Amino acid sequence: MIIVLKPEATEADANEILDKISSLGLKPLYMPGVERTVLGALGDERVLRQLHLDSYPMVDEVKPILSPYKLVARELQAHDSIISIGGVKVGGGNFTVIAGPCSVESKEQLFGIAEMLKAQHIPLLRGGAYKPRTSPYSFQGLGEEGLALLKSAKDVYGMPVVSEIIDPIDADLMSDYVDCYQIGARNMQNFRLLEAVGKQKKPVLLKRGMSATIEELLLAAEYIINAGNPNVILCERGIRTFETATRNTLDLNAVALLKQKTHLPVFVDPSHGTGVKSLINPLSRAAAAVGADGIIVETHLNPKEALSDGHQALTADDFSQLMADIKPFISAAGKQL
Amino acid sequence: MIIVLKPEATEADANEILDKISSLGLKPLYMPGVERTVLGALGDERVLRQLHLDSYPMVDEVKPILSPYKLVARELQAHDSIISIGGVKVGGGNFTVIAGPCSVESKEQLFGIAEMLKAQHIPLLRGGAYKPRTSPYSFQGLGEEGLALLKSAKDVYGMPVVSEIIDPIDADLMSDYVDCYQIGARNMQNFRLLEAVGKQKKPVLLKRGMSATIEELLLAAEYIINAGNPNVILCERGIRTFETATRNTLDLNAVALLKQKTHLPVFVDPSHGTGVKSLINPLSRAAAAVGADGIIVETHLNPKEALSDGHQALTADDFSQLMADIKPFISAAGKQL
Amino acid sequence: MIIVLKPEATEADANEILDKISSLGLKPLYMPGVERTVLGALGDERVLRQLHLDSYPMVDEVKPILSPYKLVARELQAHDSIISIGGVKVGGGNFTVIAGPCSVESKEQLFGIAEMLKAQHIPLLRGGAYKPRTSPYSFQGLGEEGLALLKSAKDVYGMPVVSEIIDPIDADLMSDYVDCYQIGARNMQNFRLLEAVGKQKKPVLLKRGMSATIEELLLAAEYIINAGNPNVILCERGIRTFETATRNTLDLNAVALLKQKTHLPVFVDPSHGTGVKSLINPLSRAAAAVGADGIIVETHLNPKEALSDGHQALTADDFSQLMADIKPFISAAGKQL
Amino acid sequence: MIIVLKPEATEADANEILDKISSLGLKPLYMPGVERTVLGALGDERVLRQLHLDSYPMVDEVKPILSPYKLVARELQAHDSIISIGGVKVGGGNFTVIAGPCSVESKEQLFGIAEMLKAQHIPLLRGGAYKPRTSPYSFQGLGEEGLALLKSAKDVYGMPVVSEIIDPIDADLMSDYVDCYQIGARNMQNFRLLEAVGKQKKPVLLKRGMSATIEELLLAAEYIINAGNPNVILCERGIRTFETATRNTLDLNAVALLKQKTHLPVFVDPSHGTGVKSLINPLSRAAAAVGADGIIVETHLNPKEALSDGHQALTADDFSQLMADIKPFISAAGKQL
Repeated sequence: MIIVLKPEATEADANEILDKISSLGLKPLYMPGVERTVLGALGDERVLRQLHLDSYPMVDEVKPILSPYKLVARELQAHDSIISIGGVKVGGGNFTVIAGPCSVESKEQLFGIAEMLKAQHIPLLRGGAYKPRTSPYSFQGLGEEGLALLKSAKDVYGMPVVSEIIDPIDADLMSDYVDCYQIGARNMQNFRLLEAVGKQKKPVLLKRGMSATIEELLLAAEYIINAGNPNVILCERGIRTFETATRNTLDLNAVALLKQKTHLPVFVDPSHGTGVKSLINPLSRAAAAVGADGIIVETHLNPKEALSDGHQALTADDFSQLMADIKPFISAAGKQL
Repeated sequence: MIIVLKPEATEADANEILDKISSLGLKPLYMPGVERTVLGALGDERVLRQLHLDSYPMVDEVKPILSPYKLVARELQAHDSIISIGGVKVGGGNFTVIAGPCSVESKEQLFGIAEMLKAQHIPLLRGGAYKPRTSPYSFQGLGEEGLALLKSAKDVYGMPVVSEIIDPIDADLMSDYVDCYQIGARNMQNFRLLEAVGKQKKPVLLKRGMSATIEELLLAAEYIINAGNPNVILCERGIRTFETATRNTLDLNAVALLKQKTHLPVFVDPSHGTGVKSLINPLSRAAAAVGADGIIVETHLNPKEALSDGHQALTADDFSQLMADIKPFISAAGKQL
Repeated sequence: MIIVLKPEATEADANEILDKISSLGLKPLYMPGVERTVLGALGDERVLRQLHLDSYPMVDEVKPILSPYKLVARELQAHDSIISIGGVKVGGGNFTVIAGPCSVESKEQLFGIAEMLKAQHIPLLRGGAYKPRTSPYSFQGLGEEGLALLKSAKDVYGMPVVSEIIDPIDADLMSDYVDCYQIGARNMQNFRLLEAVGKQKKPVLLKRGMSATIEELLLAAEYIINAGNPNVILCERGIRTFETATRNTLDLNAVALLKQKTHLPVFVDPSHGTGVKSLINPLSRAAAAVGADGIIVETHLNPKEALSDGHQALTADDFSQLMADIKPFISAAGKQL
Repeated sequence: MIIVLKPEATEADANEILDKISSLGLKPLYMPGVERTVLGALGDERVLRQLHLDSYPMVDEVKPILSPYKLVARELQAHDSIISIGGVKVGGGNFTVIAGPCSVESKEQLFGIAEMLKAQHIPLLRGGAYKPRTSPYSFQGLGEEGLALLKSAKDVYGMPVVSEIIDPIDADLMSDYVDCYQIGARNMQNFRLLEAVGKQKKPVLLKRGMSATIEELLLAAEYIINAGNPNVILCERGIRTFETATRNTLDLNAVALLKQKTHLPVFVDPSHGTGVKSLINPLSRAAAAVGADGIIVETHLNPKEALSDGHQALTADDFSQLMADIKPFISAAGKQL
């Protein structure tokens, strides 16, 4: 339920209503705006109706939240959320590029890539230390050693780092090393994992599951915010369809719809979304045009020797070309790199 | 099989080889270029190998065409095909907007829309006279009366017209009325229909089937060209996936991949590709950014009273907004409206 | 709208109401039953409401038909339709096997297969004369020559024949040769083709489109019946999904649901539904168990030399094994072979 | 790599080879059979080739394992695995029914259902204590209290129990309460969870992810066995497709293919696989016919008041009908209930 206060309402008025909401066992939300304050009440619909908040003199309007998700809904917060990853602002008018290797493989590999990206003014570095792999016989990542390498890369190159979490038990440990948790497609509905990062303070890049609906993605984000962490960035990374010419089908309909349904930033992963190196460039341009807040791209200085996903990794030259090509579309979208 | 001639080869040299190809019952292709001439030979692989064309002195190189499609492949023709719809050039550096109602409903309706589009400098008018409808009880289109209305709209407003064909038997009749045949998603593998328009001279806008792979779309185009009509424009219109928040999932991966695999122009239909009015604008921008050669959009001056697909039709104001919003992305893509 | 008459209503009472229905431009249906007569009225909902049929003394109950399909609905006809293919009864308590080659290739091939099937007591022979092929360079079928071969096989072996139609223009010609039209998955929404066979008297085996919903399949059948031909047999042949280990995903949920929603017989095509020879046997057993009225299976005496779909064709031995294995499941389902 | 020993080989011969395999850092497997012993060696392909095992006199044949999965492959073990859930044998010639509520809600609810099932001679009880729910606002299960109720139901009714695990951290705790872990569709690629149950001794019922390929399912099972627990039962529970008339599309192709590819038992969940109560009965019959080793079904004495998935729960009467209907098909399949 959304409670819009009158312009002349004071903070004391708001607090009175918030106390009332709490007293009935409901979850109160306080959202002060420039012109007027909006409050929220979440919980059992039957109890919500007993509040009779429209009878308070300082209440202008009371509206139900119609969607099954609440905290992530634009109905609740009309303006874009801007989220800080280690000081780098994501969302709002910014278009942000996150890049790096699929897996952290060695200091040499990671630092080489970071140096290349730094030269291209890329603000954020990604790299996997815990790798969810389809086969138990594939490279599973360097684990904490990989996290430590990410942290030193950050220290050397000044780029905050993003890395994937695959087990709730790692949440505290990882917060010592990384600036942003990534939750991968296969774990989008690993609800204990969502709750674990929901109890952390650092932001979460939440990827859409490979056959998750848009509503299921928003509800997964709702799990994180409901557990206490409002810093969620959504990421479309391609869905699984009948088409086999591309690894996945990048769903840009979803990006446009998400931008209307939620105030959270929405990213696009054209590397997994296509799985074809030559398609990353055009789909990155399309992502900027459709209204995405950024892209996350896999890069490798020597893709043939990559321990995972080398076929879709951009080289230094590819990456430089991508940055040149995408800029006019970011400008056309009215955003800043 | 592609036969690249030496730069000094003459037309007589080419003809000698073409005769040889024909004499074995194979299909010869003659593709003169600026620097050198390329020939093609299509047919049974075992017969092709008997040609031994590499032994001809004027032949520089003989290459197999690896893809199952031949005539549509960029391997065969490296430069973009430019196709004329009633004098309007489509493809190459052009970005072309085709717009109009889903169904032609009346003179008043069609002329009203055409006038609005003309004021927006839209070059091509679309409208359905034969409507393939899921239910036999839905409006099936005005038939020949609708075609006649399209022709008069063309005469009055100077906009060549595009309309859907659903039966091979209508191919001749329709050529008196329309400038471009449209083949809808449900008929993409109606092979007799492909052959029928393949025997016509007017261009064909071929929509991807709702669960057709990219390769199947290219092979459907191959049917038309193989029957004699090289003027084919492909159109991505959304595929059927598990997602229900949008009517279809617009597959822009496919557009980028098609631009690499074929020399034919590739259009996008954001109206059917999303089925949600508020998504047509962002997905049209994305279509321009990803490299499409144009869009085909449904418009209606009074969508609530439309006899089909009113929910996804743009009003005059919506359409004007779309044109304003898409322009910077067409420029960023280096194309001209 | 369904109009249930009182047990004592006479034929004259029924005719009075049918005349009333016709006089308003609606379509009347007459369905006499053992205990009481049921009438139907199809057409514009607003006109239907003006009938006020519940005020007639001989009318017991008036019910709307809630589904978008009417003539195919079990709401309208509670008992199973039994359809005759050249004298062979399909549906009701029968489980019918239709078998034969994907394509008719030669007299020798077709007669060899027919002889083998006859020895197995298979009542109906299938074979394609017009083949819808993904590539224009694949074998397209023998055309009318193939139809003539089917007719002679029927004359020799006494097996009525089923063959695919791909163009409305062939409907009359084919009725001279075949006992049942087949409409393939790619043409399920070729509405002119549906109307063309709807004007014929011989039955139609209608295959589900590869991404058609169950409702769309029922509406396609409705097109045929609405055009005048009530003899429609539905066929589930696998849908297109993300899974690539099988050619299609056979949807037996659909078979069970169709048996509840419609009175028409429902067949299963395990050959296309799996595309894997070793899976045809278990999926045929499952088809019998789930309630299908029969299967249609591809056979070939020499699959390696088949001109189409050899990889999924059963040999004489395979077929004999299939028949042995499926029998206990047909009995368990309470049906007769 | 599979190493088939000669019939006369002794255990000492086998041990010599196993030691050799271990000494190179590879994983040795010992599979004694009735007629001859088979050994396995898993690990880096290049190292495997260095073994030169075919030069050992007691080795009859050395074959590579071609599939990406090894331990689950029928290539490695030709006979069916039989797995004990609390003493109840699953797989081989048995057809086993597991039934119970979606969620454990109360002692009264659980015991009522268990009593009903016991009267139907159902050997195994299922019930969820940790519920993975799409929305954070839905009932999340009773947790450990639910586990305790399951254990008392087992003590009272003598039915071993199956319950879902959603977090690796719960593996030890749950082993005190349940006889079989269930891993749900959303967690099929939660690799840490697979490893956690792989370190336990109790069997695991592993459900296919809603868009997981058959190969991915087998590789998920490989994770569990590779971690040390060979007691894995696979479960097909419907995949996500475009069809919306059913909740999921039950993929019985997959069941038949799995029975050929792996020696593990394969179950079917018709409750989630259809999501439609009236379809559970026919699809259970089809599951028996296609070769499944059992079904897992949701039941509730009062579905309208169920806290989750009530719409697909069978009542006592429904369940009794199901058991009566499925029996002839289990017999036809040559299995025992």
